[in-house]
Amino acid sequence: MSGSYDLNALFAPKVVAIIGASATPGKIGNTVIQNLIDAGYEGKIIPVNPKSTEILGRPVVKDVAGLPHGLDLAVLTVPKQFVLGSMEELVKIGVKSAIIITAGFKEVGGEGAELEKKIQALCIKNNIALVGPNCLGLINMSDKVNVTFAPGQPLPGRISCFSQSGALFTSILDWALGEKVGFSKFISLGNEAVLNESHILEYLGNDPDTSVVMGYMENIIDGQKFIEKVKEVTRKKPVVVVKSGVSSAGAKAAASHTGSIAGADNAYSTAFKQTGVIRAQSMSEFFNLAQAFSKASLPQGPNLAIITNAGGPGIMATDACEKTSLKMVQPASATIESLKKVLPSYASFRNPLAIGGDATATAYKAALEEIVADDSFNAVLVILTPTSTAFEHIEAITQGLIDTIKKTDKPVFPCFMGKERISIAEKMFQNADVPFFTFPEPAIESIETMYKYAQWKEREEMTYVVPERDKAKAAAVVEEAVKTGATEIVEYQAQQILKAYNMPALASDLATTADEAAAAAEKIGFPVVLKIASVQISHKSDVGGVKVGLKNAGEVRAAFTEVTERAAKMRPDAHITGCLIQQMAPKGTKEIIIGFKRDAQFGPLLMFGLGGIYVEILKDIAFRLVPLSKEDAHNVIREIKTYKLLAGARGEKGVNFESLEDVLLKVSQLAADFPQLTEADFNPVLVNSERAYVADVRLALK
Amino acid sequence: MSGSYDLNALFAPKVVAIIGASATPGKIGNTVIQNLIDAGYEGKIIPVNPKSTEILGRPVVKDVAGLPHGLDLAVLTVPKQFVLGSMEELVKIGVKSAIIITAGFKEVGGEGAELEKKIQALCIKNNIALVGPNCLGLINMSDKVNVTFAPGQPLPGRISCFSQSGALFTSILDWALGEKVGFSKFISLGNEAVLNESHILEYLGNDPDTSVVMGYMENIIDGQKFIEKVKEVTRKKPVVVVKSGVSSAGAKAAASHTGSIAGADNAYSTAFKQTGVIRAQSMSEFFNLAQAFSKASLPQGPNLAIITNAGGPGIMATDACEKTSLKMVQPASATIESLKKVLPSYASFRNPLAIGGDATATAYKAALEEIVADDSFNAVLVILTPTSTAFEHIEAITQGLIDTIKKTDKPVFPCFMGKERISIAEKMFQNADVPFFTFPEPAIESIETMYKYAQWKEREEMTYVVPERDKAKAAAVVEEAVKTGATEIVEYQAQQILKAYNMPALASDLATTADEAAAAAEKIGFPVVLKIASVQISHKSDVGGVKVGLKNAGEVRAAFTEVTERAAKMRPDAHITGCLIQQMAPKGTKEIIIGFKRDAQFGPLLMFGLGGIYVEILKDIAFRLVPLSKEDAHNVIREIKTYKLLAGARGEKGVNFESLEDVLLKVSQLAADFPQLTEADFNPVLVNSERAYVADVRLALK
Repeated sequence: MSGSYDLNALFAPKVVAIIGASATPGKIGNTVIQNLIDAGYEGKIIPVNPKSTEILGRPVVKDVAGLPHGLDLAVLTVPKQFVLGSMEELVKIGVKSAIIITAGFKEVGGEGAELEKKIQALCIKNNIALVGPNCLGLINMSDKVNVTFAPGQPLPGRISCFSQSGALFTSILDWALGEKVGFSKFISLGNEAVLNESHILEYLGNDPDTSVVMGYMENIIDGQKFIEKVKEVTRKKPVVVVKSGVSSAGAKAAASHTGSIAGADNAYSTAFKQTGVIRAQSMSEFFNLAQAFSKASLPQGPNLAIITNAGGPGIMATDACEKTSLKMVQPASATIESLKKVLPSYASFRNPLAIGGDATATAYKAALEEIVADDSFNAVLVILTPTSTAFEHIEAITQGLIDTIKKTDKPVFPCFMGKERISIAEKMFQNADVPFFTFPEPAIESIETMYKYAQWKEREEMTYVVPERDKAKAAAVVEEAVKTGATEIVEYQAQQILKAYNMPALASDLATTADEAAAAAEKIGFPVVLKIASVQISHKSDVGGVKVGLKNAGEVRAAFTEVTERAAKMRPDAHITGCLIQQMAPKGTKEIIIGFKRDAQFGPLLMFGLGGIYVEILKDIAFRLVPLSKEDAHNVIREIKTYKLLAGARGEKGVNFESLEDVLLKVSQLAADFPQLTEADFNPVLVNSERAYVADVRLALK
Repeated sequence: MSGSYDLNALFAPKVVAIIGASATPGKIGNTVIQNLIDAGYEGKIIPVNPKSTEILGRPVVKDVAGLPHGLDLAVLTVPKQFVLGSMEELVKIGVKSAIIITAGFKEVGGEGAELEKKIQALCIKNNIALVGPNCLGLINMSDKVNVTFAPGQPLPGRISCFSQSGALFTSILDWALGEKVGFSKFISLGNEAVLNESHILEYLGNDPDTSVVMGYMENIIDGQKFIEKVKEVTRKKPVVVVKSGVSSAGAKAAASHTGSIAGADNAYSTAFKQTGVIRAQSMSEFFNLAQAFSKASLPQGPNLAIITNAGGPGIMATDACEKTSLKMVQPASATIESLKKVLPSYASFRNPLAIGGDATATAYKAALEEIVADDSFNAVLVILTPTSTAFEHIEAITQGLIDTIKKTDKPVFPCFMGKERISIAEKMFQNADVPFFTFPEPAIESIETMYKYAQWKEREEMTYVVPERDKAKAAAVVEEAVKTGATEIVEYQAQQILKAYNMPALASDLATTADEAAAAAEKIGFPVVLKIASVQISHKSDVGGVKVGLKNAGEVRAAFTEVTERAAKMRPDAHITGCLIQQMAPKGTKEIIIGFKRDAQFGPLLMFGLGGIYVEILKDIAFRLVPLSKEDAHNVIREIKTYKLLAGARGEKGVNFESLEDVLLKVSQLAADFPQLTEADFNPVLVNSERAYVADVRLALK
């Protein structure tokens, strides 16, 4: 039950047994052995089959009982009905890890799902590192292991990849073969009965043979664990994922405004962002990044140089650069002097460096050498269009570039625009392990992603603080509401929670009689707002339960009577506690919405946005997963487009940001403290240059 | 001087002379002849060279004088210093068209530019259809003409392409060769001394061999002519362009708010949008669209079906589809019934149709046949991942798909995800002239672009109306301002123009004395606004020149004295005409900004946006080139994101859109009527549910 699995036995087994080995070529139980042999596996292969004596030159063992005790890895390809039995036998010989390739389990539901649960329980109990069922298997080129039935062997390399889709696994392998991109580990996760992406990420993070982690995901089983594991990995190496199912998101029935906006995909995006996971938006971006990260070093700054033999593509690359956070600075004057010696007079010595349509290997090499030696630049894009000169000299140009690229630790991305006649260069770059691009845009986007990752790696540690609060007082309100079976904590109750958390609320008091109301108003100071207070009345305006701008005790008394009587008439089911008397919102404030929604995978997802029309029409909102660090609270406010409105547009004073950040941290703490709260709207939170005020609040319960 | 050039002589010459022909392989004057021969040219080739007698088997003519009168096409490759002389000789023999390949003219400036001007004048005077100078030449595969020195022959096809960059020309050719995409015409435009993209567009629009027009542009020489020509072409066939130089845009010193926002690239984007030109945002998009438009027919509706042998890519494709205007509807029930007969039970019969990882040619073909027969769908994406089954049957699957695709008039885009082992399928699709994609996202984006173009082709004619106005009265104001050397028409003068154009202004009157001011205010009705009126004072607030909310005659008189005296003191240079007395803006209006900026290429570019903070911070604005049609005025309002605010958010009444549209059409007319007006801000235009009011206006003069 410890959950500590021996992934070394799985990835680098000394002995592998194939349960369901077959002598028939084309059968999975045969292909797995053939792949293992073809990979050059140096350990012992034991085919298990009751009928054969020898398969692919390896002596066969009749049954699982005949396998050595403490076996490293068993690969199961037997029919579904024999899988559980085989696993039980494997437990007896103390197997350390297993891969169930066989399908027909959770993915078909019913009996299959039941069977999977039994296998899962068995493996967890006996600490068996299980991959699958319903998977393609696993490859570890670093240790010459290939226990998949996927056709072909990948090239060895330093990318490790996991996939929740077997079909995508085959696509990625095939793409990588074509692009000559190599792999260390490659894992088809299947149904993830035991091992999931979190286990694999932890292992790959510590694996010295893995420099880049790539993954295809459709869902995450344990979001909290994923976050915990992956943020350790991204400290050390880039993690690039494609996550599909964006459109299937969208909360169907949400109890709050926040709930209706914050869909499941927002939670994934936010989790990735907060843990430094790079999310590729398409398969082509995924592959571009695989190439870039595995074949080039990280840029140590944003400054990009472009060398080109044609003006047009230089302009296009500059256009593409302006869309990113990369910068096109100019070469140092010493570099310009040197360039003038090696390039023709009609070359452009400004960035982008147009070295002329008749540039040969000499010009390309000399230009690149000068540019990589110039500290002004952190990355270089080398563009070639197949002009007649370039075409004539393409091999020499390519070789010259490769020689220079191999000597520098700056990322240099060749971008040769064409297809037919530049293919020789593409092959040369591939063989030299240099990233290659056909178009400037994806090359530049890849460089930017690498630059951002370099910044992430260098980032400061986040500061987490627990704000002072009276948790017990808040707990009493929450528990009371839960006990009564309420689905919501309405404003007048929530006011007590605001106070317990020292949130900057508008002054307010609960009044149960008209006289109490008048007294409360006197204390708060006129004018005041009066709001109906009833656990059953969530939408106060629906019963005419709000009166604003009450200017004296008489008006307050009259309003109390009017509002409570109308509410009693309109909602005879409701118990009317009284009315909340509240300070009027000060003038000149901006309306903010802060809220959270508890995501099934990742826990509370906090939302921040300008309130009112802005949030509804512009959807100008930003997200963070709880808990927020001080830096998160600072940054989330600055992420929205309308941030400038808060900072003070048209000569207005900016709002008090510290006060807003304080509210954010307290809302975060509240979400963390009370799992019973499923959704929350602090809407509006009003803020001016002085301070923030939580002007209304609703909390939804499970 | 007529400007009517014989482009048939240029594109399909019966006789071609090469001035500067060379017997030395590798020289441009040799390569051009070799390319012409290799293209299978059936006309007569006449090399012109004073020294040789025969070049590449063709008898040589000593000089231009020896060429036949009325020669169709002369290609000049002679050194720069001989170009003008050769052209003068060519005029004498009445040449119809010419291509000057030689470089060193306008692009190097100085003497070269002067020389080009002479050549230009000569050709215009003699109606010579000149391409270049400084170009690669021209290809017409439909008539077996290739007078370029670009290496290699393109495949014949139905795309015609023009390029303002010779280097891009070679890239596009090379890409097309690799992708087996064929061309009819291919023109390298060079310096465009005579023929530019507008002439070429007009010709290609009428060319029966051209189905798709593609272009690479860095600038447009005559924007008005481009618009006139290209909008005729897009009625008949798609025009796809890449326009570089986006980032070089940005108005540096603008006289108006509109001017500072509306950069040159906005004018290009707007011109393309208003004429139905498809602007590719990157070279990869450009190439994807070339493939799509040339190899598939237009979808007749937005409904996309996806067939896939893997769930994951199906989800990814669905995600990509949700980002577009395409729709994923479900198959008709009859189709589902038929599919159930041909597909395994574990297939998914909902869109995306997952036909199973073990799908063979039979399943793929059967599924596609059913789907293309179903009227529910307008386009189909067929995804294949190289699972072991798919890999084993890849040729049969591909052939089956090709056979079905060739029988349907719906666009069907195969998307085979991988590289190495799917390359056989890629080649088969290329040879069968079927568009091929590796990733779902670009395939879906291409289908969407085709769908949008299909809608453009089917669109209703636009309605242009000239609003009633007193042009002479407005002209008097403009001319008076121009005569005094003013750079601006300030508000009190512009009020007369508003009246002349029947624009819905706030009631206002000019007062030259305090008494006049009081009288004007009585007439307008209190409260009123008082604003300083001086031709020299553009920024009225800078001199404290605006007083709002004046409630009676006394306040108006006092304000008049205060404002005029202060202005006189602060700006002793200014002639104070008096004050403008204006109706107070009604409450509950929305602030709009309408403006225009005269673009050097395209004329007045009109801008529409929500005013104030919205336009500054959100940059939520939309553009149209003048003149606006009634439809433009309607649509431009609905293009901004904050349109919902105007339509009435949170239960508010919507604004009077007719009134806003009326202002837009009148501003458009004003811009068209007075070329002297370079920039204009109608800011704010106030609008509520009743009507619009132009509350302030500034007009900048040349």
